[in-house]
Amino acid sequence: MALFEASEYLERIRKTKDRMAQAGIDVLIVADPANMNYLTGYDGWSFYVPQVVVVNIDEEEPIWIGRGMDVNGAKHTTFLSHTNLFGYPDDYVQSLIKHPMNFVADILKEKGCETKALGVEMDAYYFSARCYEEITKSLPSAKFKDGNLLVNWVRNIKSAQEIEYMKQAGKIVEKVMQTAIDTVAPGVRECDAVAAIYQAQISGTAEYGGDYAAIVPMMPTGEKTSTPHLTWTDEPYENEVAVNLELAACRHRYHCPMARTLYLGSNPPVKLKDTAEVVAEGLNAALDAIKPGMLCEEVELVWRNIIAKAGLEKESRIGYAMGLNYPPDWGEHTASLRPGDKTVLAPNMTFHMILGMWMDDWGFECSESFRVTDAGCETFAQFPRKLFIKS
Amino acid sequence: MALFEASEYLERIRKTKDRMAQAGIDVLIVADPANMNYLTGYDGWSFYVPQVVVVNIDEEEPIWIGRGMDVNGAKHTTFLSHTNLFGYPDDYVQSLIKHPMNFVADILKEKGCETKALGVEMDAYYFSARCYEEITKSLPSAKFKDGNLLVNWVRNIKSAQEIEYMKQAGKIVEKVMQTAIDTVAPGVRECDAVAAIYQAQISGTAEYGGDYAAIVPMMPTGEKTSTPHLTWTDEPYENEVAVNLELAACRHRYHCPMARTLYLGSNPPVKLKDTAEVVAEGLNAALDAIKPGMLCEEVELVWRNIIAKAGLEKESRIGYAMGLNYPPDWGEHTASLRPGDKTVLAPNMTFHMILGMWMDDWGFECSESFRVTDAGCETFAQFPRKLFIKS
Repeated sequence: MALFEASEYLERIRKTKDRMAQAGIDVLIVADPANMNYLTGYDGWSFYVPQVVVVNIDEEEPIWIGRGMDVNGAKHTTFLSHTNLFGYPDDYVQSLIKHPMNFVADILKEKGCETKALGVEMDAYYFSARCYEEITKSLPSAKFKDGNLLVNWVRNIKSAQEIEYMKQAGKIVEKVMQTAIDTVAPGVRECDAVAAIYQAQISGTAEYGGDYAAIVPMMPTGEKTSTPHLTWTDEPYENEVAVNLELAACRHRYHCPMARTLYLGSNPPVKLKDTAEVVAEGLNAALDAIKPGMLCEEVELVWRNIIAKAGLEKESRIGYAMGLNYPPDWGEHTASLRPGDKTVLAPNMTFHMILGMWMDDWGFECSESFRVTDAGCETFAQFPRKLFIKS
Repeated sequence: MALFEASEYLERIRKTKDRMAQAGIDVLIVADPANMNYLTGYDGWSFYVPQVVVVNIDEEEPIWIGRGMDVNGAKHTTFLSHTNLFGYPDDYVQSLIKHPMNFVADILKEKGCETKALGVEMDAYYFSARCYEEITKSLPSAKFKDGNLLVNWVRNIKSAQEIEYMKQAGKIVEKVMQTAIDTVAPGVRECDAVAAIYQAQISGTAEYGGDYAAIVPMMPTGEKTSTPHLTWTDEPYENEVAVNLELAACRHRYHCPMARTLYLGSNPPVKLKDTAEVVAEGLNAALDAIKPGMLCEEVELVWRNIIAKAGLEKESRIGYAMGLNYPPDWGEHTASLRPGDKTVLAPNMTFHMILGMWMDDWGFECSESFRVTDAGCETFAQFPRKLFIKS
């Protein structure tokens, strides 16, 4: 049951080769797990050891190189010929005397790539400083170029099938957020609420199951709502506190994140209620303004102008490209909705617009995941954009 | 509610400085999230952007440098003085023109470290090739040394409080594995079984809640049991198939992994039953043999000799040091139970011994997490070591 037709993978590879040619890269060494998946279908929690997909501009099919025990995983998940899967012996793993990148270099030599222009993803999560050091030492005659984000930019515009998976994630995330709002209550332990949220994320809907999200539920409460990336404790929720809910659903590694704030109690602070109203107004206005041809920074400006009228400002970016991914991030590290970003919006680009207002000792969050359409934009999920109050 | 006394963090820092002195490192730049947590308490899902803890051999307290919006998270989770927390502006994030490591370098210059011997973790997950390139370019007069695994080796022997958290994780994982065995059944969708497993992992017990594990449930079934790192689908389980269950529980970032194999049906293949018996015998013998002073490779040899009598061999390592961690790995990347590893076992070293037998089109797994005691070893969880059969 392939998730995409082989022809779709080949089209992605073709686009990657076009960018390689423009960048003067003969052979691209892809270590980012999302990019490996995008080009071949490879899917497994094996990125804790070095593994790569190699795209040679002169070969139709990429090759996959990873740990020996994961070759069967590559057989089950990729569209690649089995002769294009190479496993390194287990004594390369976390060894003090040799490194998996030495093995990768040996395969590249066998394939006649040792004097080619090799692209590497310099800032990809699982391409460590040592990975780079070892591969450059092992291939002294090669010319190394930075291929960082090259595949990420190909991923930027989604296919119809990718959009379909993101819509399915959108259906799941509606259920996830409703579960959070139903479950979080004074006296309930934070961990028990999060357990219910995970249950909703993974069971998905009757039609399609959920996958693990690239980021765990982030649910700071009380004063901790002043910062975005705290997770949970086993303390019970108190009364008259806010809880920020930054959640997501994932379908076949495609994400739909969603953030909301829930207030427990009957006396939400006026500043919280006021901020929630301004943020919702700014979010609505920015989404309404989106159309193909607009620049990312122009979207941010719409938001900025609305909240400025209320005397608010937000230093951090208000959104980013998002889709297929693995931990630790569902963001694609390409376009951001912020001043200076001149990326031109085009149909089927997909973003998470997240308005997080983190103050000294309180905060508020509201977000939408959306795709750019031919005429505007369309969110993947439908959920009220407001401060939820549960008294 | 600090998870450890400040004195424990200071003791960890003292041990780190001892190793720094031995390695000729004046200032250690720690990017590994587990090491950052170990030295300061920092805990947040913010490692998707560059962040570091800097240990200066001449200063009592380390400093934390991360994204501006995460400074409040550092205030809530670390024992550090607020004057030792530094946040970089948001336009450093995923920028094409500047990099957070330039900001780190600026702080190091302010602190008079620009000509010092600086240790960096060359093979840590979130220290990319670009991170290294930027920091070396920004500090041309510094002398860079590889401080990879330096803190990991300090983490190797756990304190009483760390062991306590791992025992709590052991209690949770018993519940997690029982939930898996109770839930996985023919006709049940894989995603629904995994949802129940997550629920058990995170809700924990009445006494202590669960945290997210560094690795998601890995549950290949049927032919996919021939490989370890596949996760799940939304297909229903079939009858007369095996399911490998590689699970874990986590308490305050401390893990207790556990693997078992479940057979659904009444006719498990003879080769599976036979392998299960030999593996259990080998696992029992290896655990029984463990005592302080033994070498890691000697533990593996006990196992190797038992299974050789049955005509079996296993190429990959049979275990590794494990404890505090973040995705993508609960392993500590120090000692492994495999030929050539001369690490001497000492009390309160903690390991995951995992006997995974991955064949051409089937497999079997059984594992235990344990600590070395004064006289032998002690597992963190109690669960039968056998092939589970559910007909």
